Amino acid sequence: MHIDDLSRRIDFLREIDRLKSVIRQSPLLDASRKENSAEHSWHLAMYALVLADYATGAVDITRVMKMLLIHDIVEVDAGDMPIHGASNANQMDLEQQAAARIFGLLPDAANREFSQLWREFEAAESDEAQFAKALDRFQPLLVNVFTQGGTWSENHVRYEQVLERYGPTIQRGAPVLWELAHRWVASHFSVVDVTNAVT
Amino acid sequence: MHIDDLSRRIDFLREIDRLKSVIRQSPLLDASRKENSAEHSWHLAMYALVLADYATGAVDITRVMKMLLIHDIVEVDAGDMPIHGASNANQMDLEQQAAARIFGLLPDAANREFSQLWREFEAAESDEAQFAKALDRFQPLLVNVFTQGGTWSENHVRYEQVLERYGPTIQRGAPVLWELAHRWVASHFSVVDVTNAVT
Ligand SMILES: [Ca+2]
Repeated sequence: MHIDDLSRRIDFLREIDRLKSVIRQSPLLDASRKENSAEHSWHLAMYALVLADYATGAVDITRVMKMLLIHDIVEVDAGDMPIHGASNANQMDLEQQAAARIFGLLPDAANREFSQLWREFEAAESDEAQFAKALDRFQPLLVNVFTQGGTWSENHVRYEQVLERYGPTIQRGAPVLWELAHRWVASHFSVVDVTNAVT
Repeated sequence: MHIDDLSRRIDFLREIDRLKSVIRQSPLLDASRKENSAEHSWHLAMYALVLADYATGAVDITRVMKMLLIHDIVEVDAGDMPIHGASNANQMDLEQQAAARIFGLLPDAANREFSQLWREFEAAESDEAQFAKALDRFQPLLVNVFTQGGTWSENHVRYEQVLERYGPTIQRGAPVLWELAHRWVASHFSVVDVTNAVT
């Protein structure tokens, strides 16, 4: 363990502090403010630990946790891409440059491990990546349901759009979670419809 | 997997959202605001991943990450106890009640696992717990060094007090990190002294 090894690791850990200042669209559950990507990543790692039994296939939960801890680090350079925003063709390029720069702060072996975990998450092919992706969709859905619509209300997102944007990813990685989420969503939108009809 | 199992897990995940509103003494590295305990826990899990080779003994890094992800959850009820604050004799009682209530939201097996991991962290006897404790001291030390003194300046903490409050815990769990930290601290306080002498 050369001193250069340690100082590169420290540089990386200092750099990723900036993830605490990347603001997402989703609010906290008490609606006091928007969530940032660092605390979102903590919460997702907890979702993985607590909901591991609901994954499709026998996932290696350590790899799922690692993926979720690092999945948003590219946002330090590239920013958060909102699920309901206009999609940006350059976003994938930006994120790849960000991964190269930020993981590149680390010594080679660690750089390779993190880059590969991040690419695996993005590719959404392995059981671990599909479960991680499912949780990354399930958590903001839960937040919207329990904050009277959250980003759905803000962005005038309709019932069918929610099914389309969240359903396939959650269904693939964690089907029982989608059963539950689908019921929440149906109930949420029927309440909204009734409210609209009455007022 | 009974429906009651899933709904208890969801209740727990909703409850711990409140950790994002527990504010610590330490600032972010850009000094824009104070850090909260959820993003702090994310950062510590990353410290564990990135600095695993510097642990005393051959630690199981998955258990270290789990410990760090849950170590502050009791603060949802008990609040954060600042390292430089007056120590509160009731704090340990409060934290034990908090652990019983919050982990008790989970199904029995998960409650037992998390409660045991949290007690292991607090006991600071296993190699994993000692490494986790070392990181939990090293991270705020790094923040203070790179924010012109941070909570040390605010609380008029002297060089000898820093050595005493951070040294033994970091030294025990990660001796090479303490070598580095000790140099940072010595350099920080000598710069402060020189500055004081000049102005
Ligand atoms: Ca995400």
